[in-house]
Amino acid sequence: MPKIADHSDRMRAIASAAIGVIGEAGIHNTRLRDVARAADVTTGAVTHYFDGKDAVLEAALAEVVRRLIEAQRSARVVDGDVAGAVAAFMPNTEERRRDWKVWFAFWGRAISDARLRRQHRAYYAAILANLTDSIRAFQRSGLAHPAADPALLADAVVAAVDGLGIRASLEPDEWPPERQRKTLRAMLEPILRAPPPI
Amino acid sequence: MPKIADHSDRMRAIASAAIGVIGEAGIHNTRLRDVARAADVTTGAVTHYFDGKDAVLEAALAEVVRRLIEAQRSARVVDGDVAGAVAAFMPNTEERRRDWKVWFAFWGRAISDARLRRQHRAYYAAILANLTDSIRAFQRSGLAHPAADPALLADAVVAAVDGLGIRASLEPDEWPPERQRKTLRAMLEPILRAPPPI
Repeated sequence: MPKIADHSDRMRAIASAAIGVIGEAGIHNTRLRDVARAADVTTGAVTHYFDGKDAVLEAALAEVVRRLIEAQRSARVVDGDVAGAVAAFMPNTEERRRDWKVWFAFWGRAISDARLRRQHRAYYAAILANLTDSIRAFQRSGLAHPAADPALLADAVVAAVDGLGIRASLEPDEWPPERQRKTLRAMLEPILRAPPPI
Repeated sequence: MPKIADHSDRMRAIASAAIGVIGEAGIHNTRLRDVARAADVTTGAVTHYFDGKDAVLEAALAEVVRRLIEAQRSARVVDGDVAGAVAAFMPNTEERRRDWKVWFAFWGRAISDARLRRQHRAYYAAILANLTDSIRAFQRSGLAHPAADPALLADAVVAAVDGLGIRASLEPDEWPPERQRKTLRAMLEPILRAPPPI
C-alpha cells in the first residue's frame, strides 16, 4: 500500500503537469495521455487518480488556487504601490498566463455546472477573505479610504484583476506587463481612495 | 437559388438559436442537432451553413456583439448615472446571462486559437471605439476628468464590466442586479473622475 504522502505528491505532480497542458492546448484539446506524458507517468496512473478530464481540470485549478493564496499571503505593498503588488497576479509571465488559462477553462465549464460553480465560489471566498484583510491594512496605512466598505473594495479589486486579466490573456502582444500595470493603477488607486457613496 | 436575404436571415436565425443552446448547456455540451431543433430547422440546414460547432459558436458571438454594439449606440446616461447606464450590459436578465455565456465559451476557445483571438480583438476594438467616444462626451459634460486619457478609461471600464460580469455570471444568486449596480458604481465613478497620474 503506497504511503499517503506518495499518493498526494503524485496527484499534485499530475495536477501541476495538467496546468501546463491545459494552458498550452486549451481544455477542449487536452487528452489524459498528454497530461500523463507531461507528468511522466502512465495514462493508467492518471485515470487511477482522476475519473476523467473534468477531474483533472478541477485538480489543476485547485493547484492554481493553492499557489495564488500562497502568493497573496506573502504579497507586500512597497512605497504605497498597490497596483505594483497586485500586478504579481496578472498574466504577465509564461507561468502566470498558464494559470489564467486554467481559470478560463474552469469558467467555461462552471458556467453550466452547479457543482463547479460552488467550488469556484469557495475559492473566491478564500481569495476575497485574504484581500479584505489586506484592504483593512490599507485603510490603517492610508492607502484606502478609512470609511469605505472593505468587502465592497475587495469585490471591486477582484473584478478589476479578472477583467484586465481576460483582456491581457486574449491580447498578449498588445498587453505587455507595463500596460497591465498602468491600467491596473488607473483602476485600483481611484477605487481604493474614493470616499464611500453618501 | 435562394435569395441572399433568405440566406443571411436563415444564418442569423440559427445563430440566435445557438445563443440559447450554448447559454443553457455550455459549449462543450452543445450539439448541432440541439441548435437545429432550437432554430426549428434540420441538422442538415445547420451543417449547410456552418462547418461545425466552432463555426456556430463564432456566429452566435457575432450576433451577441451585433446586439451589444446596437445597445451601446442607443445607451443614454440619465442624471449623471454612468453605472446605471453601463448596468444594461451586465448579466442581470436571463437574456443577458445567455449572451455572457457565449462570451465565456468563446474566451475558453480563443485562449488557445490565434484566429479566434484576432476575431475577439476586432470585436473589442469596435466596442472600445464606441466607448471612447462616450467617454469624450462624459469629459465634456463633467462626468469624467477632462485631462484623463479616454482610451485608458475605456480599457478600465471594459475591464470593470468583464470582471464583474464573470463574478455575477458564476454566482447568479449572490449577485442580484442591485449588487451589480452598486459595485459597478464603486468602480466606475472613481475611475472616471480621477485626475490622470502626474
